[in-house]
Parts: sequence; C-alpha cells; structure tokens
Amino acid sequence: MNVVVIGLGLIGGSIARDLAALGHRVKGADADPSTLGAAQADGVIALDLAPPPAQGEADSGPAGEPPGERRSGGRFAGAEVVILAVPVDRAPELLRQHASELAAVPLVMDTGSTKGEVVRTAREVGLGHNFVGAHPLAGDHRSGWTAGRRGLFAGERVYLCPSDPGSSSAPLALAFWDMLGAHPEMIDTDRHDAVLAWTSHLPQLTATALALTLAERGHGPGSLGRGGRDMTRLAGSDAAMWTGIARANAGELGRAMRALQARLDALRAALETDDGETLLAIFEAAREWYSSETPTVD
Amino acid sequence: MNVVVIGLGLIGGSIARDLAALGHRVKGADADPSTLGAAQADGVIALDLAPPPAQGEADSGPAGEPPGERRSGGRFAGAEVVILAVPVDRAPELLRQHASELAAVPLVMDTGSTKGEVVRTAREVGLGHNFVGAHPLAGDHRSGWTAGRRGLFAGERVYLCPSDPGSSSAPLALAFWDMLGAHPEMIDTDRHDAVLAWTSHLPQLTATALALTLAERGHGPGSLGRGGRDMTRLAGSDAAMWTGIARANAGELGRAMRALQARLDALRAALETDDGETLLAIFEAAREWYSSETPTVD
Repeated sequence: MNVVVIGLGLIGGSIARDLAALGHRVKGADADPSTLGAAQADGVIALDLAPPPAQGEADSGPAGEPPGERRSGGRFAGAEVVILAVPVDRAPELLRQHASELAAVPLVMDTGSTKGEVVRTAREVGLGHNFVGAHPLAGDHRSGWTAGRRGLFAGERVYLCPSDPGSSSAPLALAFWDMLGAHPEMIDTDRHDAVLAWTSHLPQLTATALALTLAERGHGPGSLGRGGRDMTRLAGSDAAMWTGIARANAGELGRAMRALQARLDALRAALETDDGETLLAIFEAAREWYSSETPTVD
Repeated sequence: MNVVVIGLGLIGGSIARDLAALGHRVKGADADPSTLGAAQADGVIALDLAPPPAQGEADSGPAGEPPGERRSGGRFAGAEVVILAVPVDRAPELLRQHASELAAVPLVMDTGSTKGEVVRTAREVGLGHNFVGAHPLAGDHRSGWTAGRRGLFAGERVYLCPSDPGSSSAPLALAFWDMLGAHPEMIDTDRHDAVLAWTSHLPQLTATALALTLAERGHGPGSLGRGGRDMTRLAGSDAAMWTGIARANAGELGRAMRALQARLDALRAALETDDGETLLAIFEAAREWYSSETPTVD
C-alpha cells in the first residue's frame, strides 16, 4: 500500500513506523526539515508539499495547481491513503489547499482531537466522499518524531467520523486502523467533540492548571511523588496543539470546566467545615467510579 | 535486626517484604485477619496487639499494662524499630495506647502523609526521644498487602520529621531508609505538611473531583485515553485514608484548592473569550514548569 503522512510528530511518526514495519511504502512531509531528515533516516520517503510540482501545463488551476497534476492526483498520485497528522487548526487549511489533488485518493484522514471543523471543511471542499476524521486516543504529553514508536495504537481506541458514513472510505478507514492493532469505532462528529471535551480536553486543562498552581507556589516537578507526577504529566503537552484544540471545542469544554469547578467547590466546602462524612462519601464515590466498568461512550 | 510493622498495607507490606528479603526478622500486626494471614504466608511473624500479654503482675500500670512488661518493652521487647504504617488518624491513637512499651524501642516511626499531629502526640506521650515521623513518597492509588512489593521505596524520597532532631533516633531513621534504597530527607514538621498540601494532597483531591465530574456526566474510566487515565488513577485511592489526610491538613489544603480554582478560572476566562494568545501563554508556562529542574522542596 502507498500511504502519505503529512506531519511526522508523535501520531504521524508512529503511523509511519507501523506502516513501514508492515512493508508498506510511506511518503512523509513535515514543516520541520530536521524532523523530515530523521524520518528519512528511518525509511520514510520525503515528500515536498511546498512548491508546486516542477512539470505541468502553463495555465494553473484555481488553487495554483497544474490541471494535469490535479487530474492524476498530483503529488498524491498512487496514494491509497493520505493522513494529515497535524494540529487541529492546521488540518482544515491543508484540506482547502490540496482539495483538488486529494479528491482522487480513496481515503483521506486527519488525526486531530476535535472533529467538527475538519469534517465540515472536507464536505465544503468536495471531499465528502473520501474524508474520514480519525482520532486515535494515543496521544500523551510527548511530541515530535522521536516521541513516536511502533505499536503506539495497539489496543487503543480510534474514533472515526466519516464525512459520508455511506461512502466506501468508511470501511477503508476501519480496515486501516484494524491493521495497526487499534480498536476503531464510528461516532457522530458532534458527539465525538462533546465526549472528548470531558474525557480528554478537561483532563488536559486540569493538568495545566495544577502545574501552574504548583509553579506559582514554587514547587517543581521534582517535589512530587508518583501520584503528583501522574497528575501533571500532561502539562508537558505541546502548547500550540492544545491551544488549537481548546479553541475548537471551547463551548463544551467551558461547560466541562464549570462542572469540575462545582465539584471542587463541594470538596472544599466539606474540607472547610470539617465534614468528615461528606469527605468520605466523596472519596468513596470517586473510588467506586474508578473501579466501575461503565460503557465507553455512554 | 528485629522490626515490628503495624499495618500491613501498601507501605507497611512493602517495608516488611524489603526487610525480610534483607534477612531481618519482621513481626507484623494488622486489624484484618486475612491480611495478617497473607503476610504470615510470606514470612512475617504475627504479632497480636489486641489483648494484654498473658503473663505479668497483678497490679496493672497506668495504661493497663503490667509494669514488668512495660519495663522490658512488653510486646515490643527486642525490637529495634517499630513502624506504624496506619492511616494518619490512627497513628496518634496507637502511640497513646502503647506509649509505655514503645518508650524502650530505639526508633519508632509512622509513615503517614501528614506529620503535625503525630509528632505532637509523640512528644505529649513521652516519645520525643525516639519518635521520627516518616513519610515515604511511594503511595499510589493501590492499597492492601497485595499492593505491596519489594523495592517500592528504591529511589523515592522519604521525608523525616524527628520529634527531637538532636536525638539518636534521627540518624537511625536515616540509616533505616537508606537501607531500603530510599532518599531520606529531614524536614521541619510544619513545613512538611504545608508542602505536601500542594504537592500530594491537592493532586489527590483534583483527581477525585475530576473522576466525579466524569461520573456525573456518565463517562466511565473506559472512555479515557492515556492522559485521562493518568489524571484519574488517584481516584482509586483508599477513601478512609484520604479522609483522614484531608482533615488533618485542611487549612493549607483549602488554600491550595483556592489557588487551583483561581488558575482554572483564568483558563476558562481565556477560553470563553477565545483569547488564543493567553491560552498559548498558559499552555507554554505549564510546559516550561514541566521541563524545569526546580529544587525539590524550594
């Protein structure tokens, strides 16, 4: 299989490694030349997205692409899958920029943590038939090519939001992630963003706020035990990436933050009134939740 | 060496395993007969704290202990170290109950997460000369004998709060934790509790509040990715133990919670006004903290 991976960070780099290990041909692009160099050393074929292809006809198409390249799939010619493993605020832009060339590819996916805008954009630019928003729950606080590894997705959930659930791209996407050992799961786009606000974006912002609380008080990461280290690991996440995610999902994330703050208020009230019974009930309810086997996406 | 460990949970059980592996003689006590049975199967000699020793003189001492037993160290006779690895609200009670017998032991320690009350109690009951409050930063969300393991303390910090920093018990405590591969560190008792409110107790309460926020919304642990799992693991901690810790350190912990809530307010304000610049600055500051090598206890 021929696959193009745009963005060779933790997610894109891990996809590239898995595919290469399975014997597939992987072309990769990255804005950072040193990242691309490292990926090339590991067997990824460099793909330059920046300049238009050298050959082609004199009259350019509407997006500045030579029409011949556009018809044949251009720089994505022969690719069966193109993956945009870039920050959520960059993926829609890439879809617009390369829409005509991407139209001929059987499956186009992104990997971002919010799906509403990118799926809407795909439909707008004529990629409703082949775009599937994908979100592997495999991110953590690390980033960059060196953070990637083989097997990152093994056993992990991948949410899939097809632009057109009836198109042939949806089963292709399921098969693709199955191949990487992941557990792909179709989900409605809006529902995805609403769920992730609580299960992923809220934990990230909580870790960020906790880290800054400790920083302000003068306590460094070295002062923490195991629990405190767990609770602040996400503070090391990529700042630009998370700014994009938070802004893209601000509405639901704001509601989730209010709910957390209400819980913190209740805990602090019990603490300040030395209400041991309520404190015990709160700790017990949290422990019960932790031990529960609640369905994944209620 | 002869060591008595009272409370054979995660901490006490791990101490017992390490000591036994080093060839020391470990007597253990636990309120739960099944825990004690499991520990005995692993080589711990059962010590019954409940009934007074069978032999002894007719006239009891002030604490109901036969004076003969009291003079010779009673049920702790021959012990070089006695460790109370029990919840923070139980340790002072044990010190009061066994004060006369404990007075003859060279080193008495607890292992709780707050130190103020237990160190004050030790001085009050005449154990100022041999009591050292110890707090190994090795706890996590698990509990009970089965959660314990050899090497739990290797490389981990252990805070030590001697009742009398000039007594011979302080260097004995340092040597004891050194022997288990830990990094013991003397710290003022009040300073310990103030620091831990921020670095340990605040992260615990944050995890608890986050877990309940997700529970209320209907999202189970299975809906989380790696980051969310890290952020809620502490919700599985022992409820009674943490009720005791929170109440014992309520003042400083309340201040720490207020500080966290102020940070959450600032984050939410930036989110709700779509202030990308401030959001980016917040995520960057948290990442900078995460990558910093700030001294451990400022």
